[in-house]
Amino acid sequence: MSDGHFADRYLETARRLKNPLCVGLDPHLERIPKEFGVQLDALASDASADGVQACFEIVIDECVGKVPVVKPQIAFFEQLGWRGLRALERLVARARAHGLLVILDAKRGDLASTAQAYAQSYAVPGSPCRADAITLNPYLGLDSLQPFVDASRAHGTGLFVLARTSNPGASDFQSQQIDGVPLYERVARALAPLAESLRGQSGWSSLGVVAGATYPAEAARLRAVLPRSLFLVPGYGAQGAAVREALAAFVLGPNGLEGGMVSSSRGILFGSGPQTNSAREWRSGLAARLAAARQELSEAVA
Amino acid sequence: MSDGHFADRYLETARRLKNPLCVGLDPHLERIPKEFGVQLDALASDASADGVQACFEIVIDECVGKVPVVKPQIAFFEQLGWRGLRALERLVARARAHGLLVILDAKRGDLASTAQAYAQSYAVPGSPCRADAITLNPYLGLDSLQPFVDASRAHGTGLFVLARTSNPGASDFQSQQIDGVPLYERVARALAPLAESLRGQSGWSSLGVVAGATYPAEAARLRAVLPRSLFLVPGYGAQGAAVREALAAFVLGPNGLEGGMVSSSRGILFGSGPQTNSAREWRSGLAARLAAARQELSEAVA
Repeated sequence: MSDGHFADRYLETARRLKNPLCVGLDPHLERIPKEFGVQLDALASDASADGVQACFEIVIDECVGKVPVVKPQIAFFEQLGWRGLRALERLVARARAHGLLVILDAKRGDLASTAQAYAQSYAVPGSPCRADAITLNPYLGLDSLQPFVDASRAHGTGLFVLARTSNPGASDFQSQQIDGVPLYERVARALAPLAESLRGQSGWSSLGVVAGATYPAEAARLRAVLPRSLFLVPGYGAQGAAVREALAAFVLGPNGLEGGMVSSSRGILFGSGPQTNSAREWRSGLAARLAAARQELSEAVA
Repeated sequence: MSDGHFADRYLETARRLKNPLCVGLDPHLERIPKEFGVQLDALASDASADGVQACFEIVIDECVGKVPVVKPQIAFFEQLGWRGLRALERLVARARAHGLLVILDAKRGDLASTAQAYAQSYAVPGSPCRADAITLNPYLGLDSLQPFVDASRAHGTGLFVLARTSNPGASDFQSQQIDGVPLYERVARALAPLAESLRGQSGWSSLGVVAGATYPAEAARLRAVLPRSLFLVPGYGAQGAAVREALAAFVLGPNGLEGGMVSSSRGILFGSGPQTNSAREWRSGLAARLAAARQELSEAVA
């Protein structure tokens, strides 16, 4: 759980484990085996929060020593109320204690003292829910990112700023042209000097971007602007993007996996098969899906 | 605590109380009188969360029957960890039980099932932290707003989408021109049909926007695009904008206060005078500042 430069730590771990997989910890409540006791009609209850925690402790334990990074999606914990946040804090601490890097998928973005409060919440030593990295929304401008940049400079915290997301609605604003350059690329250009200033010993920056795998051509444009930023590429697996598309967002290094990580959530957590209510059956399926994803990715980057 | 169309409820209350003031509930921890026991070196503690809760119960009680709406800023609670969320849930419930409308300033924005989880967290009956309205970030596109639009249509929940914020960095992206129209106005134009479809009996829509008071000319452009949307105008008081500028964002109705609300946080909560460590002194100052703000605003809209 030591601090350190996020990109340096990520790349060391990904090279050692020979894959760039980020397992999304998204508690889709209706997919969690009934045995865990989540009560869909009483989300704000100890039973539901404890059930989610027990289920995702298993996910974390399966990931230890196999993948470099996990990415809890905070919204799925917030829907359980304060008990959900308590479960999240415990899961994040467990993951980090076992050597997993944690990217908190929070997409926060706010101003001045409020942005500072968010950084205090997640991005610095002593944060009640200290993560190794966090996702951020750039709409409010560079000054809204500053407390996180400060945290990154002081403590190595990884930052992944939303650039191009993979949903249809991303075209509403992100891909609109400003002086001939799409907004997402303008965001990337604005980030470039900051990213350069946050490079670690590996040469890679602790300031990265979220780049949806469904638009590999756009990811290539982002790469040209941010040559040493890690790309967090969601959409591998359940969201439908193929491995090749996901990896198109990378600049493949000599060992085939530099440049970022691909994230998969539902596909690994729950698969597309029939629902099981047995925790044991679900766990064996989880292990099999995780092994298959690791193999597919390690072959793709070999 | 009944549901109902947010704009209808807001306008009825603001007319009755004769002011459009929204008191921001921003627990700036270092400004809270020491007597409340917040421990700045131990934010994730019962003492700190209980201290914040006790302090802001007083704020809420002072607001009841005087202002129509309060706006807790969730980041300041998140920095206390899960105990902070617990305090927030209790404060939101207390405010609503006493007839205050609550806008949760969360600026959330995410995709698909994640956006649905955020809506489930705050925007529907049964949410663990049910608010009357919530602030949202549009960067991910209209589909990211859809679960909240659904909540608004089904339950009257108010939505305030970030358009033009009042920070210097807002010019980085929000005011950039797309086909001759600034991004913030493009956001407003994209929202216009939705806003029209969410009008209540008052004629006003439950879909509004956040429009910073430091740019009244821009607020006027937004008003032209969204003639029946409430504007949440932050920056009255401590952030420096004068009453006239804040109100420039409104279309003044026959009774002088239709069109939205102006928000003040630090200026009312803590003022600019010297810090006091006595809860009693602080409370009497709070009451005086609140009375002064109400009078200034009720004269301005008279």
